[in-house]
Formats: sequence, C-alpha cells, structure tokens
Amino acid sequence: MLSREQLIAEIKKKRSFLCVGLDPDLDKLPDFLKSYPEPIFEFNKRIIDATRDLCVAYKPNSAFFESYGIKGLQALIDTCKYLPKDTLNIIDAKRGDIGNTSDKYARAFFDESTSGMNFDAITITPYMGNDSVKPYLAYEGKWVIILALTSSVGSKDFQYLETEGGYLYETIIKKANTWAGADRIMYVVGATKSTEFTNIRAYAPDNFLLVPGVGAQGGSLEDVCKYGMTKDCGLLVNSSRSIIYASSGEDFAEAARAEALKLQQQMAEELEKAGI
Amino acid sequence: MLSREQLIAEIKKKRSFLCVGLDPDLDKLPDFLKSYPEPIFEFNKRIIDATRDLCVAYKPNSAFFESYGIKGLQALIDTCKYLPKDTLNIIDAKRGDIGNTSDKYARAFFDESTSGMNFDAITITPYMGNDSVKPYLAYEGKWVIILALTSSVGSKDFQYLETEGGYLYETIIKKANTWAGADRIMYVVGATKSTEFTNIRAYAPDNFLLVPGVGAQGGSLEDVCKYGMTKDCGLLVNSSRSIIYASSGEDFAEAARAEALKLQQQMAEELEKAGI
Repeated sequence: MLSREQLIAEIKKKRSFLCVGLDPDLDKLPDFLKSYPEPIFEFNKRIIDATRDLCVAYKPNSAFFESYGIKGLQALIDTCKYLPKDTLNIIDAKRGDIGNTSDKYARAFFDESTSGMNFDAITITPYMGNDSVKPYLAYEGKWVIILALTSSVGSKDFQYLETEGGYLYETIIKKANTWAGADRIMYVVGATKSTEFTNIRAYAPDNFLLVPGVGAQGGSLEDVCKYGMTKDCGLLVNSSRSIIYASSGEDFAEAARAEALKLQQQMAEELEKAGI
Repeated sequence: MLSREQLIAEIKKKRSFLCVGLDPDLDKLPDFLKSYPEPIFEFNKRIIDATRDLCVAYKPNSAFFESYGIKGLQALIDTCKYLPKDTLNIIDAKRGDIGNTSDKYARAFFDESTSGMNFDAITITPYMGNDSVKPYLAYEGKWVIILALTSSVGSKDFQYLETEGGYLYETIIKKANTWAGADRIMYVVGATKSTEFTNIRAYAPDNFLLVPGVGAQGGSLEDVCKYGMTKDCGLLVNSSRSIIYASSGEDFAEAARAEALKLQQQMAEELEKAGI
C-alpha cells in the first residue's frame, strides 16, 4: 500500500508515472500460454516481471477476469497477491452502490481475510453520492478513484450536462473533494480532453488524476502533462492494450517491456521539463 | 428468460409483482446452516423454495457474494443455476464502463458458456452513457435495469442536480428511453419518493420500474402503486432483508415465506384495485 508521499517518491525514483492496465483476454493471449494451468495469471505474472521497474501502478480490470467465472476470479486473486509492494495496485471495478452494499464491495477488494484480495485502490462510479464512497474510505490508507470524465463516446450523454456548478463531471469533482483529501481521492479523467485539465486543476489542484486513453485510445502524453501535471506530478497515466498486447508471440513480455520503456522515457522527459 | 409479455402474464397469474432480493450475509445466516459445505447457497436455495410461487423475480446482490471471494462466486453461480425458469432473474451488479469492458461484464453475467452464469437482467449505472449499456442489449431478450433514482441519502448529491431536461435522473430516463424500448429497459426508482412516480410516468409510461426500499427502507407499497402502476402493472417491488432475515432460527424459510405472503396479498389487492 502506498501513501501519497510514497507514491510521489516512487515516481521520482523510477522517473515514471505509468500505470500498466491488465485487461487479459484469452483470445488475445499468446498461444503457448494456453497450455498452462492458469494462462491468465501466467500472462499477468510475466507482464508484471517485465515492467515492474518502469511503472508505479498496476490496474487489473475486473470485468476481464469476471467474464471467466471461477477461473477468472482465481486469476485475479493470484494476480493481486503477485503485485509488487512498491506499486499502487488499483482494481478497476467501477463499483457504486448504497452504503451497506458498498461495504461488501470494499470487503471484496480490500479485505484479504474474506475475499483473498487486498488492493490499494478502487475505481468508483459516483452516481449514488457519498454513501457509495464512504465504506471504502473507512479502510485506512486505501484510495478511491472516482470516475469523472471518460474518453468514450458515451461521455457526451451525461458527463457534459450543464449543472449549476459547471458540467456534471465538474460538479462531481467539486463535491467529492469535500468528502476526503488528495491523500485518499483520485479522479479518472480521459486523456482525449487534455485542455480540460486546466479547468480541473482550478478546483482539484492536488488530486492525482488517473488518465486512461493515452496510446490505443489516442490521447497525447505531452498535452496531458502540459495541462494536468502539478509540482508533485499528480498524474498516473494508464496504458493497457498497447503494452500488454504489443506482441502475440513468445516474446510478448519483452515487447511489453519495450512499449513500457518508451512511455517511461517520455515520462522521464516530462518530469525533467517540470523540474520534478 | 422472461419477455415483457411473459412477465406480465406471470404477474397476473401469481397475483404478485414481488422481487425477492438475495443479500446473503454469513453473519446473519441461521447458525445451523454454517455446518453445510455451501451455507450461502443452501440459504438461498431454501429461500427460493419457500417463495417461488409468491414472487415473479429474484435479485441476488453481487456485492454480498463477491465479498466472500471464490466461495462467494461459487454460491452465486450455483444460485443462478437454481433460480426458477418462470421468474425474472436479475443480477444486481450496478456495473457501468466503456464498451469493451461492458462487453466483458455482459459475458460475466449473461454468457453461461464462459462464466457459468445466465441471468435475465442486470442493473447498470448509466454515468458512462450509451457505450455502457449497448453490450448488454446485444444479448437478445436480456434486460438492462438502469439506475435512476435511489432511496439512499446520497441520492441528493447528484441525482437531483438540475439539468436542462429536469433533474439528472429524469434526463437519464429520457435519454436511455431512446436507446431501446420498454421490452428491454427498466429503471431503478427508490420507493421513498413515491410522488415522483407521477412525473416519471409522464416520460416513461410503459417501462417496468424496479422499486427497492419497500419494507426495511420505509417506502409505502400503497403509494408506489397509486403513483407508479400502469395498466400492465409496470412495477417490480423488491424486498430483501425483511423477507430473507425474517427469522434467524431454523424456521427462517417458513418465516421468509410468511413475509413474502404478506406482501403478495397486499400486491394482489393492489392489482385487483387497478383491474389487472
């Protein structure tokens, strides 16, 4: 588990603010792995081994594991246990429900004694308000990462609705920032809207932003940094498919490392530029 | 799997629009069940056996199962397989994510060949817009039940934000009703706001509404029916705790049946009043 200070220290040490997204899809896994008893875990393990010095966070996407039933959940549990201690380990679950149900989801992902999993952070959908977030914050030191602005087409349906406090996603960030500090709350902000980082930084100057959509989804790392970076970095930039599926051959782990290295080197430059 | 017509036929036949919520909590289970190899499934099985002629839907809450890791998921899979063919079987999962991830969640709950589960319907959080709903609708005959208005305190944080089309939850219903018809989409509407059913019926005249919050959470069945019932009923009223935890003794199943029967009898009266 990493505190805000520890996360910032890791970013400075590794010269990276890369989050590697683990979205394992059996149809895309290298053929030779399919004969392993646990192909999904074996895939994740090798990706982790190949990238752990280049990134500061991992983000398994729960849906990909859940789609395989018991075997998928076992792979998620095993992956969770295998994740390094010096990275921020995020379960991308987008949960959101009333208090007593959120309490159960918090156990599912934060309480190893009941579920077998002990992630550091979870992505949350904020629609149900404070109730849906509180139970996670009750776990000392754990993070919630609240969905604000996504890079998908559907973001236009509701996230940009005009409300008294600005667009809906802005109202959400402003409100959620009254629930806990920047040491407990991050926001998901889609990278295809990089100019909007300027606005967000006006009312969320210190929160880390988890930025999907660089790489496969088309966002520009340079823009994200230009508008979103703070004096403590304040960014975790996620890449999933462009790293983990860089090759579908036996060299997939080396290829993943090469992609991660490319991003890490760009990130090192951006940190240098910002004097971090 | 029940179509809209079949669901309406079941409601008329059983004189009930009751949905039994399955929120199994090991701490609340009768002691004698704890020696069974699968106490959660055993509990659900007996609740189902005791109530299946009195209700038209079941709604396992995924969080409660997930909190127990592998054992919990196995209990959910076994429960799913055990659910009757003549009830609408809803997984209360409140998922919501971008298209390629929603596709995986859809497999997790709708595609038995990969996950072991084959629910008829799933609850969805709409924040990510159309992307997050489409992949579920791609499964012929399956339902999505979109979160609109909840009965929790946190509903005030965002659901009542004023937008051009009315409160946020109203804008969501209006928009989502352009995505598919009343034969594929239902909405979650919290029962503590029963006067608001009148408004909702103005723009969602035909959709079934899944109404939590009658019973333990304090809503009135009479008010829900007065303002929300349509000529086809149009309501599924959920009760979880007041039924499944009616007794913590060996008689829990009989006690659950007695509670379900009370609700079913009230529902039969309401259907009679409405000439259904």
